Amino acid sequence: MEEVLNELQEWLRIASVSADPRAVDDVRRAAEFTAGMFERAGLEGVRLIEGDGHPLVYGEWMHAPGKPTLLCYGHYDVQPAEPLELWRTPPFEPTVIGENLYARGAADDKGLAIILIWAVRRYLAEGRPLPVNVRFLFEGEEESGGDHVSQFLRAAGGEFACDAALICDTEMFAPELPTICVGLRGIVYAELHIETGETDLHSGVYGGGVPNALEVAARVVASLKGATGKVLIAGFEDGLIPPTEEERESWAALPFDEHEYQRGEAKVFTLHGEPEYSLFERLWARPTMEIHGIAGGFTGEGAKTVIPCEAVVKMSCRLGPGMDPNRVGSLLSQAVAEVTPAGVKSSLRILHGAPASVVDPKNPFVREAASAMTEVFGSKTVYTRSGGSIPIVGLIEEVLRVPSVMMGFGLPDDNLHAPNEKVYLPNVYRGIEAVARYFERLGGL
Amino acid sequence: MEEVLNELQEWLRIASVSADPRAVDDVRRAAEFTAGMFERAGLEGVRLIEGDGHPLVYGEWMHAPGKPTLLCYGHYDVQPAEPLELWRTPPFEPTVIGENLYARGAADDKGLAIILIWAVRRYLAEGRPLPVNVRFLFEGEEESGGDHVSQFLRAAGGEFACDAALICDTEMFAPELPTICVGLRGIVYAELHIETGETDLHSGVYGGGVPNALEVAARVVASLKGATGKVLIAGFEDGLIPPTEEERESWAALPFDEHEYQRGEAKVFTLHGEPEYSLFERLWARPTMEIHGIAGGFTGEGAKTVIPCEAVVKMSCRLGPGMDPNRVGSLLSQAVAEVTPAGVKSSLRILHGAPASVVDPKNPFVREAASAMTEVFGSKTVYTRSGGSIPIVGLIEEVLRVPSVMMGFGLPDDNLHAPNEKVYLPNVYRGIEAVARYFERLGGL
Repeated sequence: MEEVLNELQEWLRIASVSADPRAVDDVRRAAEFTAGMFERAGLEGVRLIEGDGHPLVYGEWMHAPGKPTLLCYGHYDVQPAEPLELWRTPPFEPTVIGENLYARGAADDKGLAIILIWAVRRYLAEGRPLPVNVRFLFEGEEESGGDHVSQFLRAAGGEFACDAALICDTEMFAPELPTICVGLRGIVYAELHIETGETDLHSGVYGGGVPNALEVAARVVASLKGATGKVLIAGFEDGLIPPTEEERESWAALPFDEHEYQRGEAKVFTLHGEPEYSLFERLWARPTMEIHGIAGGFTGEGAKTVIPCEAVVKMSCRLGPGMDPNRVGSLLSQAVAEVTPAGVKSSLRILHGAPASVVDPKNPFVREAASAMTEVFGSKTVYTRSGGSIPIVGLIEEVLRVPSVMMGFGLPDDNLHAPNEKVYLPNVYRGIEAVARYFERLGGL
Repeated sequence: MEEVLNELQEWLRIASVSADPRAVDDVRRAAEFTAGMFERAGLEGVRLIEGDGHPLVYGEWMHAPGKPTLLCYGHYDVQPAEPLELWRTPPFEPTVIGENLYARGAADDKGLAIILIWAVRRYLAEGRPLPVNVRFLFEGEEESGGDHVSQFLRAAGGEFACDAALICDTEMFAPELPTICVGLRGIVYAELHIETGETDLHSGVYGGGVPNALEVAARVVASLKGATGKVLIAGFEDGLIPPTEEERESWAALPFDEHEYQRGEAKVFTLHGEPEYSLFERLWARPTMEIHGIAGGFTGEGAKTVIPCEAVVKMSCRLGPGMDPNRVGSLLSQAVAEVTPAGVKSSLRILHGAPASVVDPKNPFVREAASAMTEVFGSKTVYTRSGGSIPIVGLIEEVLRVPSVMMGFGLPDDNLHAPNEKVYLPNVYRGIEAVARYFERLGGL
């Protein structure tokens, strides 16, 4: 345990902020340190894979013929630490307080990714063979949206035969409640452009005579989604696979205080959404549409009286399982065109799209992971979903055609992407134990 | 004529950009030059009036007992000249090309305000008495929204007895068509604040469970105004005094090409507005609501997936005659409160308000101005309105309780506030003639 903590602290001291161009040397140092961890764990063929952006780190152990192969994914880069003044301990001087270790990257993802490494190390470093084959692939651009891992997997995916991916980058639904995430929503991100003319006009001189691009934008937006939260585009939900009754029941049984969620976590004055669905179904399984920003006209200090001739709406839809992002993009474009008034130009640009991913909890790779976690944590593993998307999961599903097993060892109060990020150390140690037991179970199948 | 042109060119060479703090010396030089012009014209008691911001310039001639007193208003400051690269001649080197004089301030307002000065100079400098009394008050903050003239008039207005104000800062409806502006719309400018919670949230994690402040803003905005342009707030138009049948007919008789207006002037793909009203009634006499900007969330490059917890809508209503800005502000606040969903906070902050101003064309001060212009320009003077507001007119009406006579000598293509501003010199000379004849007519009443 002390060795794990020491190595983790050393890793966390490297400020591998992938989004910061000035940190490029630190990011590389973190990649090299990761390679060293792989080697100390007994992995073979350890190397940095260069390409556009920060390097990937690869290592493998493939000496369990006839046994399953797991692709173990993690990332060695971290979010920026700003705002620094809100940290109670320095973000890159890992500090143990009680049973928590505070540092940027403590939970996202170094403190959880290290679980995978040490689960392997416990075998190989002691001269014992692993019960399964493993390929480790860690990236350094998860927090900066880099494209390197995607380019690499698309190009080299054929050589990456595996049976499942194992990812430790998610959290437990509640402390002491072992959790596997078995579903992610898809997304279609779009920019709506509205144009009414060539130049902004004075609202005194022209008001009453010409259209207003921001008003049109507001009207279009308000027409696409009902006041209760339902997306009103015809055909939008076609293909949607609702959760099973069993899933709904399991979600309803999760320990959850809606009031605490509203006030303490989301910090909103009211919850909101389609009244005929439960909160978890709305967050995890229902498609949505959200407005992220509306540009155009004047938003500075004071009172400028301009009729904007252009408006840009940043918006996205989250997709439930079974919904095709391309189809949703087309429907959205069509709906926008239909509600745009005559004589006004509108266009929709799709920035990116990804389908939802769901893994069947009855899939043996998931089932065995759940059993391993239950053994170690002493309570029944729950299956949750996430309303967001984890790009690597979609990529693995699309390119490698295998399921991703997301074993959650983080906690809801780990302050990911925020000041005072921490990891609960007992979960790191129990995580190593759980992943090792998972290897055993898979090897024994 | 040569003397007028020389003095105007010298005035225009002073870059009196009131909004530019670095130009403060030039603005003062322009004030002093204005005072010199007043003195050369034979005005008495000429002085700079100091206060917050740039000085006012005052001068008077009050030796026509029993005759009306006119407050002659103009402004010696100009708009910034940027973007400089679009000027074909240097903005502060006045250049005559054909019958036009090009310079920043050529039409707004130096080239038109000089008409008032020379109309007086033609009498007093030649030793002839003026047929009326005049008080000249020129300001240096018209283009920068300064408060000096307002503070001064509110404080000293009682000493400023006059029968009408005369303003040369507007334009002819069309070349060779003498024009008096007899109406301005009022305004209520407001900021709508929508708040749904304490922090922006991730649209993957929370989408479907919480309200979106920008979506609420769009919905509120879309509910306040119908798709055809009518404001839907109950009681909004109470008190509105529509134009008379005679005014409507005179507007319909104006020489006007709607297609050219749409394509050439407004440069919009379509005109828009309440179909039951003519374009001029919509622009000049109908109340409106316009959205100027919607802040909140993310409008930068790329795809940030944020559910904004705050939105601010900059908006304003133009008011027709008879509508009370305070009442409209209250109705707007009330309407916003009514359409804000439960559990969402909204508030409306009124930034400023001003009522509409209309002058009866039958008022003798207006009628005689029209006759004087008709004599000089050789065609019948038309009465128009403006959809905007000229703050000094409202101020004069409120504080001095006299009508403003707006004799328009500018042209629609003078490029006010834009590169290559110019004045059509024959209008300056004919303007001096017309104002002199106006003095005669008022003196003979």
